[in-house]
Amino acid sequence: MTSETADLALQQLRNTIDNIDTALVCLLAERFKTTQTVGELKAQYQLPASDPEREAQQVARLRQLAENAQLDPDFAERFFSFVVSEVIAHHKRIASSLETD
Amino acid sequence: MTSETADLALQQLRNTIDNIDTALVCLLAERFKTTQTVGELKAQYQLPASDPEREAQQVARLRQLAENAQLDPDFAERFFSFVVSEVIAHHKRIASSLETD
Repeated sequence: MTSETADLALQQLRNTIDNIDTALVCLLAERFKTTQTVGELKAQYQLPASDPEREAQQVARLRQLAENAQLDPDFAERFFSFVVSEVIAHHKRIASSLETD
Repeated sequence: MTSETADLALQQLRNTIDNIDTALVCLLAERFKTTQTVGELKAQYQLPASDPEREAQQVARLRQLAENAQLDPDFAERFFSFVVSEVIAHHKRIASSLETD
């Protein structure tokens, strides 16, 4: 492969990455809308912001899905922890805003 | 809403979250397959593992996409940094395995 062909190949791969990232951002937006509603329900019924049993089930499921999809299961778990820590921070903010209202 | 209706609503929201997570894992798997190929190209042509200019463009694009999708742009940027740091670690491993082969 010449250096020019490599540049073209790199550009095409980057276009694919950009398309995948667009889809990821849209899915994350929908995920946060859904967890926002969960947070409101939890705050209204005074349920705890985090639920370790549910989280353990999600981790096990996502690790299996990752393996089937040829994604490193450890990465999938780190990704999940990253998203969940953000969600829990949101839930706590929702709960404290209800307390002060 | 009764407590039972709230439980049912929570379960339905969790089913949606699980479906979104399945899609996220599959997209992340495809993203890593694509960046794996980028890493191999970069290693073969001795290009640096990270590319700050490309990354700055990606961050700006993703922040805008996040805003359009009603996702916190700061979260989108943190998510991107999280994924990119993993990709760069992969690229370095590919480059060092080529050096030692």
